Amino acid sequence: MNKRNGLKIVTIGGGSSYTPELVEGFIKRYEECPISELWLVDIEEGKEKLEIVGNLAKRMVEKAGVPMEIHLTLNRKEALKNADFVTTQMRVGQLNARIKDEKIPLMHGMIGQETNGAGGLFKGLRTIPVLLEIAEEMQNHCPNAWLINFTNPAGMVTEALLRYSNHKKVVGVCNVPINMHMTIAKLLDVDLNRVHIDFAGLNHMVYGLHVYVDGQEVTNKVLEYLANPEIQMTMKNIAPLPWQKEFLLSLGVLPCPYHRYYYKTQQILNEELEAFKTGTTRAEVVKRLEDELFDLYKDENLSIKPPQLEKRGGAYYSDAACSLISSIYNDKKDIQVLNVRNNGSIQGIPNESAVEVSCVVTKQGPIPISIGELPPEINGLVQQIKSFERVGAEAAVTGSYEKALLALTINPLVPSDEAAKMVLDELLQAHKAYLPKFF
Amino acid sequence: MNKRNGLKIVTIGGGSSYTPELVEGFIKRYEECPISELWLVDIEEGKEKLEIVGNLAKRMVEKAGVPMEIHLTLNRKEALKNADFVTTQMRVGQLNARIKDEKIPLMHGMIGQETNGAGGLFKGLRTIPVLLEIAEEMQNHCPNAWLINFTNPAGMVTEALLRYSNHKKVVGVCNVPINMHMTIAKLLDVDLNRVHIDFAGLNHMVYGLHVYVDGQEVTNKVLEYLANPEIQMTMKNIAPLPWQKEFLLSLGVLPCPYHRYYYKTQQILNEELEAFKTGTTRAEVVKRLEDELFDLYKDENLSIKPPQLEKRGGAYYSDAACSLISSIYNDKKDIQVLNVRNNGSIQGIPNESAVEVSCVVTKQGPIPISIGELPPEINGLVQQIKSFERVGAEAAVTGSYEKALLALTINPLVPSDEAAKMVLDELLQAHKAYLPKFF
Amino acid sequence: MNKRNGLKIVTIGGGSSYTPELVEGFIKRYEECPISELWLVDIEEGKEKLEIVGNLAKRMVEKAGVPMEIHLTLNRKEALKNADFVTTQMRVGQLNARIKDEKIPLMHGMIGQETNGAGGLFKGLRTIPVLLEIAEEMQNHCPNAWLINFTNPAGMVTEALLRYSNHKKVVGVCNVPINMHMTIAKLLDVDLNRVHIDFAGLNHMVYGLHVYVDGQEVTNKVLEYLANPEIQMTMKNIAPLPWQKEFLLSLGVLPCPYHRYYYKTQQILNEELEAFKTGTTRAEVVKRLEDELFDLYKDENLSIKPPQLEKRGGAYYSDAACSLISSIYNDKKDIQVLNVRNNGSIQGIPNESAVEVSCVVTKQGPIPISIGELPPEINGLVQQIKSFERVGAEAAVTGSYEKALLALTINPLVPSDEAAKMVLDELLQAHKAYLPKFF
Amino acid sequence: MNKRNGLKIVTIGGGSSYTPELVEGFIKRYEECPISELWLVDIEEGKEKLEIVGNLAKRMVEKAGVPMEIHLTLNRKEALKNADFVTTQMRVGQLNARIKDEKIPLMHGMIGQETNGAGGLFKGLRTIPVLLEIAEEMQNHCPNAWLINFTNPAGMVTEALLRYSNHKKVVGVCNVPINMHMTIAKLLDVDLNRVHIDFAGLNHMVYGLHVYVDGQEVTNKVLEYLANPEIQMTMKNIAPLPWQKEFLLSLGVLPCPYHRYYYKTQQILNEELEAFKTGTTRAEVVKRLEDELFDLYKDENLSIKPPQLEKRGGAYYSDAACSLISSIYNDKKDIQVLNVRNNGSIQGIPNESAVEVSCVVTKQGPIPISIGELPPEINGLVQQIKSFERVGAEAAVTGSYEKALLALTINPLVPSDEAAKMVLDELLQAHKAYLPKFF
Repeated sequence: MNKRNGLKIVTIGGGSSYTPELVEGFIKRYEECPISELWLVDIEEGKEKLEIVGNLAKRMVEKAGVPMEIHLTLNRKEALKNADFVTTQMRVGQLNARIKDEKIPLMHGMIGQETNGAGGLFKGLRTIPVLLEIAEEMQNHCPNAWLINFTNPAGMVTEALLRYSNHKKVVGVCNVPINMHMTIAKLLDVDLNRVHIDFAGLNHMVYGLHVYVDGQEVTNKVLEYLANPEIQMTMKNIAPLPWQKEFLLSLGVLPCPYHRYYYKTQQILNEELEAFKTGTTRAEVVKRLEDELFDLYKDENLSIKPPQLEKRGGAYYSDAACSLISSIYNDKKDIQVLNVRNNGSIQGIPNESAVEVSCVVTKQGPIPISIGELPPEINGLVQQIKSFERVGAEAAVTGSYEKALLALTINPLVPSDEAAKMVLDELLQAHKAYLPKFF
Repeated sequence: MNKRNGLKIVTIGGGSSYTPELVEGFIKRYEECPISELWLVDIEEGKEKLEIVGNLAKRMVEKAGVPMEIHLTLNRKEALKNADFVTTQMRVGQLNARIKDEKIPLMHGMIGQETNGAGGLFKGLRTIPVLLEIAEEMQNHCPNAWLINFTNPAGMVTEALLRYSNHKKVVGVCNVPINMHMTIAKLLDVDLNRVHIDFAGLNHMVYGLHVYVDGQEVTNKVLEYLANPEIQMTMKNIAPLPWQKEFLLSLGVLPCPYHRYYYKTQQILNEELEAFKTGTTRAEVVKRLEDELFDLYKDENLSIKPPQLEKRGGAYYSDAACSLISSIYNDKKDIQVLNVRNNGSIQGIPNESAVEVSCVVTKQGPIPISIGELPPEINGLVQQIKSFERVGAEAAVTGSYEKALLALTINPLVPSDEAAKMVLDELLQAHKAYLPKFF
Repeated sequence: MNKRNGLKIVTIGGGSSYTPELVEGFIKRYEECPISELWLVDIEEGKEKLEIVGNLAKRMVEKAGVPMEIHLTLNRKEALKNADFVTTQMRVGQLNARIKDEKIPLMHGMIGQETNGAGGLFKGLRTIPVLLEIAEEMQNHCPNAWLINFTNPAGMVTEALLRYSNHKKVVGVCNVPINMHMTIAKLLDVDLNRVHIDFAGLNHMVYGLHVYVDGQEVTNKVLEYLANPEIQMTMKNIAPLPWQKEFLLSLGVLPCPYHRYYYKTQQILNEELEAFKTGTTRAEVVKRLEDELFDLYKDENLSIKPPQLEKRGGAYYSDAACSLISSIYNDKKDIQVLNVRNNGSIQGIPNESAVEVSCVVTKQGPIPISIGELPPEINGLVQQIKSFERVGAEAAVTGSYEKALLALTINPLVPSDEAAKMVLDELLQAHKAYLPKFF
Repeated sequence: MNKRNGLKIVTIGGGSSYTPELVEGFIKRYEECPISELWLVDIEEGKEKLEIVGNLAKRMVEKAGVPMEIHLTLNRKEALKNADFVTTQMRVGQLNARIKDEKIPLMHGMIGQETNGAGGLFKGLRTIPVLLEIAEEMQNHCPNAWLINFTNPAGMVTEALLRYSNHKKVVGVCNVPINMHMTIAKLLDVDLNRVHIDFAGLNHMVYGLHVYVDGQEVTNKVLEYLANPEIQMTMKNIAPLPWQKEFLLSLGVLPCPYHRYYYKTQQILNEELEAFKTGTTRAEVVKRLEDELFDLYKDENLSIKPPQLEKRGGAYYSDAACSLISSIYNDKKDIQVLNVRNNGSIQGIPNESAVEVSCVVTKQGPIPISIGELPPEINGLVQQIKSFERVGAEAAVTGSYEKALLALTINPLVPSDEAAKMVLDELLQAHKAYLPKFF
């Protein structure tokens, strides 16, 4: 940590509509985690949003009465100087790119989503080179700072950072595990901290292997609850399709909401095609929500996170990130579910690869617990997505058309090599401006 | 080996239309591999076919002038006594069951095939308990004999035998690798024995990792050939759909013909649906071919394998089996591609699991070569099918509805948990008579 | 946990001179860890000591004013009924056996020590069958209780319990890591809780892989300190021989005091031979200390742990055990170094084997962190001792002379197969009464 | 292979007394393996011996009537141009260095031997940089040629070549396995080719895991034979000390003669100390033998390998090397025991490390068979020596004093860190001229 009185945090993509939640999180934890400077960084295209969000942030801090300086800048390198933590939440190509990631695959009859399948690959291809550049700058300007990435697809992005960057202090954060944890505690009607879940897998492909309450395993009981179509564990952006009961009990572990894409591919596709027809794909909905949010943010009388933000879908993202920063800073040794270097935690996945797994968070960073072998029931799918992430990350770094095609073809949401080629060609054209390595 | 002058071979499912090919193979190799007794065993339902095929076998042997006794029996235990090798090629439920394995999934809009997907699982569920019973009997009647299984799905069957039987001398044989080897030698226009291919993967999911001619690697050259839509490497029972060229070159290793089911799922499904409409699914075609073959076999003037058998689709099956028997008997130490206990050959697959891999065939049995890590591009799919095989084998052994549902849902050819349940319920009813463990 | 108001703890080998430390630890933690019943169990031979220690325990509890019932019994099964935690600290054959474990090897010119080499094997051979019996009884009488073993050789004993018992709630505890941690914090002159050390290896063969202060790695600085012959990190029972400086820096990780047996074999042997001549082997010293201690314990005016106990050598044993119990009971999620099932924590050691490794202690038990690969510099020795522990545990369970001979011969402290046989034969005779499986 | 009519072989260290055996081997196999050019290369210091041996080689070839050109040169690069195979058998520092490797450790009371312990490390330190240089030159002058190394310590040398050189076509050859194979065939009184042994381990630390005759396992029978003190399996340079019978049977696998250094350390040391006193250490004996041999070689009437060479101790070295060359050239696919990249063959040893293991020898090089896990009984020692080889190879490449000290201290034949430092300092001085990286 640096000599100044408090921490310096840099948030890249600071103009995001999520930022107020992050700021709220920092304010709430100010006592335990004193941030003296928060730098919100964005790019030229995002300047206006940065101003709006930044001003709201300033009002929030002022209202809360905490001595946290808010800096707004387009100069990333300046911001990074001597930072303690850097969070990244940018969207290369903005929501228009997401709309294409969702719609173009759907036009070819396959799932279109921003974190998996063809859309997920393209979000990765656009994002990874930018994050590698940031990691490189951090090596120069704040080599001891942690890079805390929320940008999706967080699995592929963390894989790329761990394999291709020299900056090794990298953690990927996702709100899926904390949402699962909270939902299950509620279902069981016990305090969150009495419920322990061993999480393991990949980002948006994480499983709860065992659930304990007060040290007693209750996994099967939880599976029974989750199999009840009345009680759905899902996320804002995923259709609440019920699980097939016998399947869930036989699986023996808790899938995450995103597993529906893989275990209920057909139904999810049908839902998406319906949304496509009615102009209510997730990106379109989000775009409208964002417009509304920014309208709210502009209001100079607003000096708290507006409740409408909750609809936006990233609930607990900020909690996840703020918790992580505080646990590292305070050496809390609590358990959080993070995307980190596997280092043998899950057997059968390379040591160098990213996994999403329960970690003990110490001052020297998160340490994954030892998971051992995944049950055979789930190992296959996890390995397949890991293959996709590895090949996708390689495509992003090299700009190889062939690797991108390969990544798509081996993805279980892409129905064939020919469909892969069609959607690849179209998405490449659509995102040309953000894919300099490919052109 | 036993004290008698030659080997005793037992062929279970001896009434199969393939048997003449096997007999031809034994006759051809009589010098190096002197079989004094060949026992063809079948069940009551197959008695008539056994007689027809058995009589043809007798005429073939007589014509060839080799002193090989042909025995026909329905008494399996008697046949097994002191056998040296036992080959199994039975079809539990006969071709009518195969027709159901193909058609019922198609009715639900998913691939119907006898060795993978829902059809493959059901062939496994019917077959595995019978093979475990045979293995058990071998422990009593011929504990030193090798069980050489051709019955599909050979991967799941070998997995089950290796994990759940005490008879450890088990090898699964498939004609896919030898077909690939021969096709490639032809493409390259060099002698078969100058071409070496490292094969690794699972049954019907085997890859050629490296191709060498005279010790020089020519893998990319071969991939270029295979990407040429004019030059197709396929099998009688798989539509000769061309590979996407950039995909193939980027994959970097040779897929087998069955990989089309996974990399070209949509197109294969379309082809199958077309066949379904026109009553030309593979099982239906085979049924007609078989009827014709048995008509031919009845001809008392026939004393060779009729050329029409080649259309049947199992080309080189007999070659694979006869070669294996001869190499074990003669301690040839040649390299053959077989389904054996992994024992560390492919990293990331359990030691106890079955893999299909290049082996050195010695008198003490086949020994897999060390393959190391699979390239990430292919590891995911291989792992997923291994998960399917493990869960499927467990379902067959336990008769667990839940495990069967799980196996289907995690199979990449089954589009969802709900589709899995529908097809499962229907197939269970359809095959009830052959699934005593489930009822 | 059970319905009664507090915890029920059973201490087998309750008549040990260590018990007052344990009782002190329980009293100190009474607030956070309310023990309502402490059962001290011993065998007929230890009855007198049990009475002495038990009465002291009662006086201690009374003086402290905590409502902890002390029960003394020779009836182990009765004691185990509904226990929450069972601690084991017995010495099969008592100190006379230890004297033989030390002296007989020395007579043959090899190291004689109670936890490693020939002496360690024999302590294991005598102890393991008794602990397996206890574990079996726990399955019947308190299946949810944790077995917390301090009995040496804790590595081999935990290996045997994990592999050969059905009672899987087993943890081995040792005071070496906590001693190292405290010594290093003192050397660095910082608070214990600011120092984090990743420990990994085996019992009495544990290494500190990385040392951090406030998240910054300081391993090399610590190695420099430890290489200073003035500053010795050692234990009461190990000669404070200084490390070779260049060796220590090149090793790059912190050895534990017991590593001297392996890296300074010759010097340790010389020290021991000297002690042998003068009648001051560790066992002899301990025997005298124990006699003195029991004389003190008898004093009815004594109602605290006498300070003389510290000389006895097991400093922090009780702390380690009490901490563990409290952390499990309170779901503390703190990090402790424990002997647990490896489960992939250290790569290259079987999942089923015991390792000594940093664990997060939760209500459902200790979970090892993921260590990954051991550096090659230390992997060899760790693997060798793991081989010794596995073969030794098998010898103990089977009573196989050959396995015992094999365990000795592969131990690096035994100079040859012939020396192994000599010392084996002599120790077998010497300990005949405690080795029913061998006779 | 090159365009010329036959193979070009380069033998570095061509002036070795072993060369006539190699030449004899090449002549014997001329039909199957037509060598048109044999280049014997040596350094200035070895010029005289090169002439003597080279002239004998020419006479041998002439007498045999094979059209093999013998070239003698001190110009290594010229020799390497377009070579097909390069064999290396040099001794950096010549026999005087070996005498020091043996005697200096003995003076400090530890085993002195040229392939293991302190002597082995120093032979490695002198040799590895030279071999890396040769490998580098091969990359330029004959990138497709195989480097076939016999130079000891072949394990550490192959480890260094595989890890630190870009020339990946490297194989280490040793005569130990072929000697074991032949001895055992003789003991069993059956033809060599009916006996199959699965070999696995490291160089001079290889075990025969299973012995089969005609496919039937006879391992225990062989162990019984080997336990008979009358029937010794050993080598010219290792004292024929009998194994402890119960140990051998319990070990369950065949140790190699060099295992005596580890399982009978004390007795071997005693034998060596005796030889030291009487001036009959192995190096001294060999030096005398070599002088006699060179006297014989000078005889212009000699045109065959003189029978006296057999006493020299490298029996079958040439056979091993010639066999390997012929099997690669002819794509024989026979099984040979070679030092190659592990690539998963032995579980628990890194893929990149060298192991000595049964391989199938194909035109594209040797492929190890899959061994799986080593039995725990032997895994520990193998891992320990692999640690030694890895650290030793790193010391050789970096010239690090600390790494050299570490390598010695972790070697089981060195009794302590202090003894390690003493012997290290003395050997460094003694071999200064051949260790430029260290000075």
